[in-house]
Amino acid sequence: MNDDIAKALETIFATDSALYQSRGFQRRIGFGTRPALVNVDLANAWTRPGNAFSCEGMDGVIASVQRLLAAARAKQIPVVFTSTAYAITEGPNTDMGLWYHKVPLECLKAGSPDVAIDDRIAPEPGELVIVKKRASGFHGTPLAGYLRSVGVDTVILTGVTMSACVRHTTEDAIAEGFRPIVVREAVGDRIAAAVEWNLFDVDAKFADVEPLDRVLAYFDSLDTAQDVTPLPDAARRRA
Amino acid sequence: MNDDIAKALETIFATDSALYQSRGFQRRIGFGTRPALVNVDLANAWTRPGNAFSCEGMDGVIASVQRLLAAARAKQIPVVFTSTAYAITEGPNTDMGLWYHKVPLECLKAGSPDVAIDDRIAPEPGELVIVKKRASGFHGTPLAGYLRSVGVDTVILTGVTMSACVRHTTEDAIAEGFRPIVVREAVGDRIAAAVEWNLFDVDAKFADVEPLDRVLAYFDSLDTAQDVTPLPDAARRRA
Amino acid sequence: MNDDIAKALETIFATDSALYQSRGFQRRIGFGTRPALVNVDLANAWTRPGNAFSCEGMDGVIASVQRLLAAARAKQIPVVFTSTAYAITEGPNTDMGLWYHKVPLECLKAGSPDVAIDDRIAPEPGELVIVKKRASGFHGTPLAGYLRSVGVDTVILTGVTMSACVRHTTEDAIAEGFRPIVVREAVGDRIAAAVEWNLFDVDAKFADVEPLDRVLAYFDSLDTAQDVTPLPDAARRRA
Amino acid sequence: MNDDIAKALETIFATDSALYQSRGFQRRIGFGTRPALVNVDLANAWTRPGNAFSCEGMDGVIASVQRLLAAARAKQIPVVFTSTAYAITEGPNTDMGLWYHKVPLECLKAGSPDVAIDDRIAPEPGELVIVKKRASGFHGTPLAGYLRSVGVDTVILTGVTMSACVRHTTEDAIAEGFRPIVVREAVGDRIAAAVEWNLFDVDAKFADVEPLDRVLAYFDSLDTAQDVTPLPDAARRRA
Repeated sequence: MNDDIAKALETIFATDSALYQSRGFQRRIGFGTRPALVNVDLANAWTRPGNAFSCEGMDGVIASVQRLLAAARAKQIPVVFTSTAYAITEGPNTDMGLWYHKVPLECLKAGSPDVAIDDRIAPEPGELVIVKKRASGFHGTPLAGYLRSVGVDTVILTGVTMSACVRHTTEDAIAEGFRPIVVREAVGDRIAAAVEWNLFDVDAKFADVEPLDRVLAYFDSLDTAQDVTPLPDAARRRA
Repeated sequence: MNDDIAKALETIFATDSALYQSRGFQRRIGFGTRPALVNVDLANAWTRPGNAFSCEGMDGVIASVQRLLAAARAKQIPVVFTSTAYAITEGPNTDMGLWYHKVPLECLKAGSPDVAIDDRIAPEPGELVIVKKRASGFHGTPLAGYLRSVGVDTVILTGVTMSACVRHTTEDAIAEGFRPIVVREAVGDRIAAAVEWNLFDVDAKFADVEPLDRVLAYFDSLDTAQDVTPLPDAARRRA
Repeated sequence: MNDDIAKALETIFATDSALYQSRGFQRRIGFGTRPALVNVDLANAWTRPGNAFSCEGMDGVIASVQRLLAAARAKQIPVVFTSTAYAITEGPNTDMGLWYHKVPLECLKAGSPDVAIDDRIAPEPGELVIVKKRASGFHGTPLAGYLRSVGVDTVILTGVTMSACVRHTTEDAIAEGFRPIVVREAVGDRIAAAVEWNLFDVDAKFADVEPLDRVLAYFDSLDTAQDVTPLPDAARRRA
Repeated sequence: MNDDIAKALETIFATDSALYQSRGFQRRIGFGTRPALVNVDLANAWTRPGNAFSCEGMDGVIASVQRLLAAARAKQIPVVFTSTAYAITEGPNTDMGLWYHKVPLECLKAGSPDVAIDDRIAPEPGELVIVKKRASGFHGTPLAGYLRSVGVDTVILTGVTMSACVRHTTEDAIAEGFRPIVVREAVGDRIAAAVEWNLFDVDAKFADVEPLDRVLAYFDSLDTAQDVTPLPDAARRRA
């Protein structure tokens, strides 16, 4: 993003923030008491060069996510990774839906290394990997049901792209009743300016955009998660 | 939107379109064979001045929607209006969800004139008015089920705001399996620039953005809708 | 239900309970800490004679729901009523979906007295009335989003019919992450035996079926609900 | 199921069918023009002996599904298999939701042979295997989006159990706008009587229950599926 463009966007955002503030938008939703860390589409097709889906600035995003993962794991905070992949990329019974009429989904073959989570941030046992078919991590997936049943009230969002999958996931998160927090240093895109305008929109209306340090401090402030609804031993024995 | 900003955005969009084209994004999804016209939040709180939710340029949007409505009604195309309203705006049992922690939902009281559809585009009998609680017209509403069961494959979108309810509805439309078409002259916002960057994002990834004239011509080209799955008279008589 | 049939069902249930117990089914899900009372389709078409949808034994069901309402209201427990109604019951754009190909939905016209909640259990201000299009109270409605965002973890279910709307709502409740409790004396149907086999199925697999007295005692044991996420005064003022 | 019980159920069903007929229930939804074959939970934990989830009469069910698969594959009808499996069966972040408080989900470990589709009906390339977390094949899965975007209007259902996963999937199918057809010889349970009362309920209100031969004849009558919305070669080349 060159300086002229950055400056033009800054001017827009400043003017519009004044409008939003006077209207009662841009409120703060705040952190809740039980977060999950949801990492959107940080798989090789997006995080490594050479794919139609490759994004810019991924080393910084990965480094930020590494710090978030370490802090989350120390407190047994639920960790989720999403990827986007298709089992049937040819013929009348494809599972790509209509979305491949807009973007090159045929590059995202289920089971290929392209759609595996980047091994610099590899999932550990006890962390959920959700393969989705649409932009939102919630659409046609068990994500909402998972988060709710483990008592999560806050969703910390990272990943790519800010102009599609992260944004749609953020919008769905608040719709589903979770407090969405987007980590500024941990989100990216193919287009630098699109990160900026999408962060502006979601901060005004759907989520709090917060710096990495503040989210790390929040994680550190929490107690380690306990199993709030364990099954009685009697029921386990019966099975 | 002043000229400098308009020019800056044009520069961004031109550069990024080149990137998207080279990567296989910005494909055309096209019109299907059975559309619905879905008008998002064209209620007084958004279309008239004096409300926290009031938008800019609404006279042009309303005029465009009037033309779309006339064309759609001539062909018995399903017409849907959404509004956003809340029955309980105080206390522990409010139906505003978490969203009022970002935007001033407490202004949108169910049953008030603010949340009634603008009477310049008043719904007619046989047209569905859906009151939603979230940004997307699909979230927590019968919209997807309705469109599907009347055989719709294409959703023509109008309304406000482009940076929230229209965008989220568009993203959900393609996720649900409908071809979304956003009518350029029939969408608005509080912020002119936000219309532009959101149209850019959705045209690249989620929907075709089309001029009003082209959508009107498409409506004109269709046959009048027929009841494809009427109930046999025998079944009706039994009831 | 005559005695022979009641006895036959008892025999089936006893045998099958032994099987379920040996396999680890029929576990108890228990009451959580924040319930809602969800009354399914207790509108005149179901609760009064003379409609295709009229049910049996409604006076007892209504009396039970009256006691539950009084206990719930004393503690500011969220109360929800559902009804099923259609705005467009003729032509190619009907909102009845495909369901009217199985059951006589054309009798349930939106705005008619038939689909109004029975006035013996009339909703009070601050209680949500949800008009649904499908059997489940969750399908195409804001119910899940509502319950989640007011912190509900337990859904107390009443209403009709046990073989359709109450059952489907119960199945969806546990799927959505809520503890479903079906109140034995507060559910009904057109067919007495169908109440029994559906209670048997849901108690084995989806919900706890509990007597009215136990649910009333549970309500009495709770503290009055507080607004857990009120908006700061500053934010309200801004609006 | 002994003779007395079978006779008692027959008496109930006959009486109640008369009531339903007089009220306009038990209508026929019929076959549409583009079916999918959806096989619910025909994985080893259900189809083979020795598991808490093992069902009765599975050899007959498997034989019926083999015939349906052959007929569906001959016409390129979309074929879907569901299984139910959990990645995290211990601790505070389990993905079992609340459902393991009713049934022994801890036996269904993701990646184990128990949750693999029975190899007598092994999925072929181009057929979708959906791992679900809840009873319904639609809940928290891409099933509805998949079926819709490949143009399906009719869902042919097989599998287990009739009193839980098949029933909930059937209810959701019609709610989502698909015509559900349950194949009598291709569904089962742990409890023979529960098959009967659940078939009775769903045939009255949610689906047509049809014999295997009729469904096979329907498949045979169809043309081979064509790709109705192939991507233009130009778009593919760009990617």
